[in-house]
Amino acid sequence: MAEKITVEIISIGDEILYGQILDTNSQWLGETLTSAGFHVVHRTSVGDTSQAIANALKAAQSRANIILTTGGLGPTKDDITKKTIASYFNVDMQMVPEVLEHIRGLLASRGRTLNDLISQQALMPTNGRVMHNRTGTAPGMWFEHEGHVFASMPGVPSEMKTIFAEEILPALKQKFKPPVIIHSKIKTLGVPESVLANMIEPWEDALPSHIKLAYLPSEERVMLRLTGTGQSKEALEKELAEQVALLTPYIEPHIFAYGEDDMEDVVARMLKERGLTLGVAESCTGGMISHVLTRKAGASDYFKGGVIAYSNAVKTSALGVKNDVLDRVGAVSEESAHDMALGARLALGVDIALSVTGVAGPDGGSDAKPVGTVFIGLSTAQGTFARKFSFAKVRRLNMVLATQNALFMLIKHLKDNK
Amino acid sequence: MAEKITVEIISIGDEILYGQILDTNSQWLGETLTSAGFHVVHRTSVGDTSQAIANALKAAQSRANIILTTGGLGPTKDDITKKTIASYFNVDMQMVPEVLEHIRGLLASRGRTLNDLISQQALMPTNGRVMHNRTGTAPGMWFEHEGHVFASMPGVPSEMKTIFAEEILPALKQKFKPPVIIHSKIKTLGVPESVLANMIEPWEDALPSHIKLAYLPSEERVMLRLTGTGQSKEALEKELAEQVALLTPYIEPHIFAYGEDDMEDVVARMLKERGLTLGVAESCTGGMISHVLTRKAGASDYFKGGVIAYSNAVKTSALGVKNDVLDRVGAVSEESAHDMALGARLALGVDIALSVTGVAGPDGGSDAKPVGTVFIGLSTAQGTFARKFSFAKVRRLNMVLATQNALFMLIKHLKDNK
Repeated sequence: MAEKITVEIISIGDEILYGQILDTNSQWLGETLTSAGFHVVHRTSVGDTSQAIANALKAAQSRANIILTTGGLGPTKDDITKKTIASYFNVDMQMVPEVLEHIRGLLASRGRTLNDLISQQALMPTNGRVMHNRTGTAPGMWFEHEGHVFASMPGVPSEMKTIFAEEILPALKQKFKPPVIIHSKIKTLGVPESVLANMIEPWEDALPSHIKLAYLPSEERVMLRLTGTGQSKEALEKELAEQVALLTPYIEPHIFAYGEDDMEDVVARMLKERGLTLGVAESCTGGMISHVLTRKAGASDYFKGGVIAYSNAVKTSALGVKNDVLDRVGAVSEESAHDMALGARLALGVDIALSVTGVAGPDGGSDAKPVGTVFIGLSTAQGTFARKFSFAKVRRLNMVLATQNALFMLIKHLKDNK
Repeated sequence: MAEKITVEIISIGDEILYGQILDTNSQWLGETLTSAGFHVVHRTSVGDTSQAIANALKAAQSRANIILTTGGLGPTKDDITKKTIASYFNVDMQMVPEVLEHIRGLLASRGRTLNDLISQQALMPTNGRVMHNRTGTAPGMWFEHEGHVFASMPGVPSEMKTIFAEEILPALKQKFKPPVIIHSKIKTLGVPESVLANMIEPWEDALPSHIKLAYLPSEERVMLRLTGTGQSKEALEKELAEQVALLTPYIEPHIFAYGEDDMEDVVARMLKERGLTLGVAESCTGGMISHVLTRKAGASDYFKGGVIAYSNAVKTSALGVKNDVLDRVGAVSEESAHDMALGARLALGVDIALSVTGVAGPDGGSDAKPVGTVFIGLSTAQGTFARKFSFAKVRRLNMVLATQNALFMLIKHLKDNK
């Protein structure tokens, strides 16, 4: 195997050290670099002092081929990264006319004009190459020094990501020619990591050595990620697709999505393909299902609305759940979930309705219906049914699990009824 | 001013470098240490190799009084922090019977028994002091070495926080006696940071030097944080309360909460105090208001339900918005917001109803109603009104701003109508 191409990420700013912000930049860079075949070996965060930044650059140069910095490129006096870098390389700063023009245009589009302070954003160390910042005023910068590449980006996440993806990563690939790395993701719900591992053991044991499997569990689901390393993108893509096809039969009922899709993306695609409309009746999820369905654009094509029936009175008045059901078996029951789904479908005039009623906690549990007891219902013109689930002890997690399982129930129903 | 007590935080694990997880531990430690009067000067993340960990410990010792590590304390072979620390201090490991007993009890409560692998969690470098891990098997550890304190914690966030808050922070305070630091937070909505700064300038200029002001903007609101440093907790609390009282008149209409309260906490308290019930009618927020109101426990005391009227048909059928209004001025209009709020109050049988209708984007905008145009309505038995807002260009941000402004409108209404 070829020599690893090593990277160190340095994030700059007192606000990181003091915990005022989460360093999402370093995480995103780590993930993006790893996916592209680079090897992140160290991360450092330092405050807004020249000494700390210079020391960090020097130490990083002893560890990595590539040194990336984020932060400290703003126009105020706190922002000293650029001056410190110039001094580290022992060069002067010069005004870069193309950057100044870009800044002038950007300000003009916001109805503002250039002033002395902002003009300084167009100053750069003389040994630097501009990495164009399409969305902001602080240019990214590329330096080559003693056999190392240094690249510097502003700390605003959207600007950092744009500069890195559009300018710096292509330049790094061209210079260092990392191996081709391809990922495939398989997303599962409802089965713990250790159980999944048992189920797929024969397949995993037969994986070739250049394809690695990682289990990436979050609290509500487990993502399997295949990583193939090689020289040919096409050959790797074909091999990974074959491996995913071999894996699928072992765990098919638990797979809700492949690739970058979330649960709601799969729901959206299936409903749009069939021209079906959806509505929801939510009790213990309190609006989370509607929120998850609508947070991505285009939901109005299939999602028509919902009833948040948090109180029993609303379950009765808006969804037609009978008082007899609420008195006899309670709002948290299969019958109530059934009637809520049916009532929502009729009241909202949709093809399919989902319903959720349960005990999210921390209060409201009983011996018969402990916290985490949730009923999920589904209604179509062909019929209505509801199913009982037992989730977790924590309110937020119960809401997430109820939401994800309700949408997964819909996906399974659509698959089974083509 | 006394010498600063300096801290370096080292997080250990390949999963951090590769961006598979966000390093929330280092952020939480930074925030907690800063609040307690310590000065975080450096953060480092290294992978699971002895060499990288040992180098990081050595470099940290040259920079800080206190060195904290998280991660790499599990029972599997990847987890090498403990052995590396023992080797760094040039000491052996020994079994600690009290830790072994704790592990045995913890496993028993989960129906499991001790095995050889897990028993090794009770091994500790001989110069270490146990920092009890109440909720897990990997003990926290405290070392004193060449005038520095080293403390080591597992990487599981809940265990790390418990050990730090209950064991390590008290020990650090006792040993280093940091100054007393007190914070006061004031949360505002609807005014940019630079405008707020102008409004409060006379007050800010008169602040005594031991009280510092920080502007902490997130994308939807600006938090002002006062930090007082001194020797007496009581005196500082009194001073900060006085300063907050002096500040308030400058920006009172824009303050929605003080301290740790979020918008929904203020809504909850005001509604509960007055015994009022709330319902919502949501179009472009798609369930986010209901979700925000119900994600914290106890919402059923005042929140009765909502209608997600994503389509015009649901606006008409469930909320009684007239087709005439929709045809004449459209769903995104003051009249529609008015009728949605009124309709929700009557349909849900609540004392107060909020409504939101707007263009969240990215599609659906026009010259007359560009993306970001939102109308928010409020209805009580005393009357119904709606107001127009112009928010942002980004869908998610429009949803957040509409949600926060709707709840703020409710808070203001309740304040004005006691």
